[in-house]
Amino acid sequence: MPLRMSTLFLRTLRDDPAEAEVASHKLLVRAGYIRRAAPGIYTWLPLGLRVKNKVEQIVREEMNAIGGQEVLFPALLPREPYETTGRWDDYGDNLFRLRDRKDADYLLAPTHEEMFTLLVKDHYSSYKDLPAYLYQIQTKYRDEARPRAGLLRMREFIMKDSYSFTVDEAGLDEAYAAHRSAYLKIFARLGLEVVPVQATAGAMGGSQSEEFLHPSPVGEDTFVESAGGFRANVEAVTTVVPEPLDYTNAPAAEVKDTPDSTTIATLVDVSNQLLPREDRAWEAADTLKCVVLTAVVDGGERRQFVVGVPGDRDVDLKRLEASVAQLLQVNGEPTLEPATEEDLRKHPGLVKGYIGPTDFSSGTARAFFGEESQTGLPFFVDPRIVAGTAWITGANSAQQHVFGLVAERDFTWDGVVEATEVRDGDPAPDGSGPLQTRRGMEMGHIFQLGRKYAEALDLKVLDENGKQVVVTMGSYGIGVTRAVAALAEAHHDEHGLAWPIAVAPAEVHIVATGKGDEILAAAEKLSSELESRGLEVLLDDRKKVSAGVKFSDSELLGVPLTVVVGRGLADGEVELKVRATGERRNVDVADAAEIIDDQLRSLR
Amino acid sequence: MPLRMSTLFLRTLRDDPAEAEVASHKLLVRAGYIRRAAPGIYTWLPLGLRVKNKVEQIVREEMNAIGGQEVLFPALLPREPYETTGRWDDYGDNLFRLRDRKDADYLLAPTHEEMFTLLVKDHYSSYKDLPAYLYQIQTKYRDEARPRAGLLRMREFIMKDSYSFTVDEAGLDEAYAAHRSAYLKIFARLGLEVVPVQATAGAMGGSQSEEFLHPSPVGEDTFVESAGGFRANVEAVTTVVPEPLDYTNAPAAEVKDTPDSTTIATLVDVSNQLLPREDRAWEAADTLKCVVLTAVVDGGERRQFVVGVPGDRDVDLKRLEASVAQLLQVNGEPTLEPATEEDLRKHPGLVKGYIGPTDFSSGTARAFFGEESQTGLPFFVDPRIVAGTAWITGANSAQQHVFGLVAERDFTWDGVVEATEVRDGDPAPDGSGPLQTRRGMEMGHIFQLGRKYAEALDLKVLDENGKQVVVTMGSYGIGVTRAVAALAEAHHDEHGLAWPIAVAPAEVHIVATGKGDEILAAAEKLSSELESRGLEVLLDDRKKVSAGVKFSDSELLGVPLTVVVGRGLADGEVELKVRATGERRNVDVADAAEIIDDQLRSLR
Repeated sequence: MPLRMSTLFLRTLRDDPAEAEVASHKLLVRAGYIRRAAPGIYTWLPLGLRVKNKVEQIVREEMNAIGGQEVLFPALLPREPYETTGRWDDYGDNLFRLRDRKDADYLLAPTHEEMFTLLVKDHYSSYKDLPAYLYQIQTKYRDEARPRAGLLRMREFIMKDSYSFTVDEAGLDEAYAAHRSAYLKIFARLGLEVVPVQATAGAMGGSQSEEFLHPSPVGEDTFVESAGGFRANVEAVTTVVPEPLDYTNAPAAEVKDTPDSTTIATLVDVSNQLLPREDRAWEAADTLKCVVLTAVVDGGERRQFVVGVPGDRDVDLKRLEASVAQLLQVNGEPTLEPATEEDLRKHPGLVKGYIGPTDFSSGTARAFFGEESQTGLPFFVDPRIVAGTAWITGANSAQQHVFGLVAERDFTWDGVVEATEVRDGDPAPDGSGPLQTRRGMEMGHIFQLGRKYAEALDLKVLDENGKQVVVTMGSYGIGVTRAVAALAEAHHDEHGLAWPIAVAPAEVHIVATGKGDEILAAAEKLSSELESRGLEVLLDDRKKVSAGVKFSDSELLGVPLTVVVGRGLADGEVELKVRATGERRNVDVADAAEIIDDQLRSLR
Repeated sequence: MPLRMSTLFLRTLRDDPAEAEVASHKLLVRAGYIRRAAPGIYTWLPLGLRVKNKVEQIVREEMNAIGGQEVLFPALLPREPYETTGRWDDYGDNLFRLRDRKDADYLLAPTHEEMFTLLVKDHYSSYKDLPAYLYQIQTKYRDEARPRAGLLRMREFIMKDSYSFTVDEAGLDEAYAAHRSAYLKIFARLGLEVVPVQATAGAMGGSQSEEFLHPSPVGEDTFVESAGGFRANVEAVTTVVPEPLDYTNAPAAEVKDTPDSTTIATLVDVSNQLLPREDRAWEAADTLKCVVLTAVVDGGERRQFVVGVPGDRDVDLKRLEASVAQLLQVNGEPTLEPATEEDLRKHPGLVKGYIGPTDFSSGTARAFFGEESQTGLPFFVDPRIVAGTAWITGANSAQQHVFGLVAERDFTWDGVVEATEVRDGDPAPDGSGPLQTRRGMEMGHIFQLGRKYAEALDLKVLDENGKQVVVTMGSYGIGVTRAVAALAEAHHDEHGLAWPIAVAPAEVHIVATGKGDEILAAAEKLSSELESRGLEVLLDDRKKVSAGVKFSDSELLGVPLTVVVGRGLADGEVELKVRATGERRNVDVADAAEIIDDQLRSLR
């Protein structure tokens, strides 16, 4: 049976929902695919559910094709396994926690690493049982601070998550490659452009990790590409480090009065005005900006530290966050923010606008940062701050900066960190040319997890030599719900959605316009013919609805091919319209079914 | 591709899980269909997931066939709609409640009446839009006090719930009939015997309500049938009320000493010993047992009341619970329990073992129960306590009972209630003969909901005369997870499961036994032939596993037809075994695919 607009549970809306900012959100709501139930929580209406199911089925088929075996875990899980791995706490406010009637702690799972690990532990004990690729397509929960953009960032959402279990790294490499190629097939079948980019490997140095980003101006992620083929998430970009300079003959640092120069811009102006140098003007890049940041660690403690970056660069908190846990040697995933006035009051030695790594107040230069220093603040620098580079920076007394402060000679640091924004034109780390930044949506992530979870939960098997070895894992995710949103972002115009045929709620949309009974009869007949060819038909058989409304609904709903059965029928013709291109042609009604079938084949 | 036992994520277990009491639980775990994650919370393993999905698909197809439209609501929902209908509180401890990071109240939905009602309100405004039948197949949550029996009573489970929206009762009757017939088709297709029985209609007097019970000794529900075709849930059985008796000439009630007669049995003995009557001995049925019960109402308040029942009958708390909210005029669904010692201490006038409706302590008879009485306790009686019946009952003083206490003349009551157990041999309310009780599992429930939710949430449409009318709703549920358990209960033997073909994880199980490569090759060939016929094959291609283990696994897993490719192959033969009947025969390997195809057709 066709989907009949006369009875379909659907009301298209003329107006965008009030809170909607991005096209997918507006159009999916207006076209009656989804409906908001709570912030970041949506109901799937009949047409939306069909799209979601098609996306899931494509994911499922490609996972099965690489030997993935589907299981289904509960969403409501006991605390214990997540306690064992530390994630009960690490997730912080992002985790929905609850208690049952016996006061036992439960959570709504954001991902299932622990459960998969325990399941395999429960089943397998020998290298002969491996490799195993297990996956599920399941509803997940994340108490996002800022759920947004409809299906793009939700609190209840659907993901395919899979895990590979192998006896060694070679097996992991194979599993990773299999998933990588499955993912590329999935996105190709979905009709969704993705760019695989290097991602940060987190705590697991050296392991591979890639994100599949869908390039989109409304994406929340930034990635870079070079003409030579380097592609990475900005968090994974490493700075090309300059060679250290010989500072044997560098002039001594000098403290100078620099009134009213609390910003880099005013400092550069004041420097050029009062203390010009001969060869060229001072620039922001000559200054060392020392930024005080606060890491909010587990339990809410606020720890301050300082990063030193060239004054022409901004600190990129997201890039810095990727390594801050390691730098500060804390557990979990601390969030970063600029130090507040209250944070700064804890460190009375700091003179805002005049902060630098060296203290001259006592007459001799002393380290202002580091464990042994007066402030005790940890100090990390951008990789561009190499030995021998000379800087203008704060002298730690009001209205004074120091000039010619030489790295390594005059100040040192507790660590080097990727702390600054990546800019268009920065060199690619592999020498493949200048980088261009782009926005993207994270559609998938594949990740060599290694032994973290297997170790924490004691998942071991006997190897060929009868020795217990910890199993090696990989983790692979695709956001099903987000893929629906990305598809809507990628395939729409000002009139509405324009689904790729693989995920469209129907393949052909028959619009019957005009009043004669013979028109509806012809539309019904064509619908039957198309259905007997195995095609999915949406039939606009509404009686008291104008042709204009039907056409605009048809454009809004976005079925790939529309067939108008109307005036032309008197001449034995119907009109075919390709939604995505707008291409139209009239065909003989007698041949219509065959022609439509062919045309849909060409759209596949 | 066939499911290959050599790589299938499956480990069959020899031993029953420790906590398992019922066969479905034991076998589904041992055969590797499900795995416990927490009390009442299970993971679906690959084979189990296939069964679950097939059950869902059958449900879906039959729902679509009656014009049902599938949607999908979130499980995590805000408090407000459930607050509006009172269910936020009514659900008591059965509801999983939680708070998000902004301290807003959420719940994990046990059912979605509110959300469906609001969705229709959002979309529809005219009688022309109706009827609408909407459904979802979705994960639900209920914090059961005693999750049990594997998939039979869970805390996270899957249900199909549908709702009909019609402009009037005639529409509701149609929707109800459509669902009823769809349900019968669903259970027939699943291969699950069900008995539709009348159920209590709850607060909505007069509306239809039926449960679909699967007769099973491990069921939690009791239902009755008469030879004449009456069938009801015990909660819905009404007692056949005797005619009132003329008590004009009944002798006066007399208080007598009845030492040590605090139970019905001792009271009957003491009565026959000390106060024998002439025509026949006293029996338990001559006594009026007054039982003090506690209703635990919303907020945990414990309210006592008394029910009077013939002494030969026990109180059935479940039957009584069905009407207690109405009797006590409280909201929600109070639970009932026998009054505790502490409860009784609140009513010092009660003399345990000697309680009765009339107080003789002052010399004249006074009502002992009722709002105006000394105790203030509400008093309800079984329908058998009709006017003119005379009873032996407590005199409210120690060691004393009253004889010949006549209903209506000597005591009255606040209400009549179905309070006693239904017994084999009780008359059917419709005169269709004596009742037999049976145990059953509730597989589905269809229910004329009426206007309760539409009124609470203000769902109205314009009728044909342009008048706003409240929409009439029906509610229809099938437990998908429980259906899997019931199927396992209904279709197993001492060796394992024996699935009906419609829900089996595979249709044919090829077992390759013996060491020769030609055996495995023949099994693979047969597998390909069967798959090219569109059949689902499970292939036991394990190499170092004995024939005995393979056979017992095959019986445990319960695929409808097993094909043994082994020794017989030397003579060009394979063996077919029907799992359910044990029937075997050898067939020529060349004809095997065709014969198997035919045989499977006969099993459908």
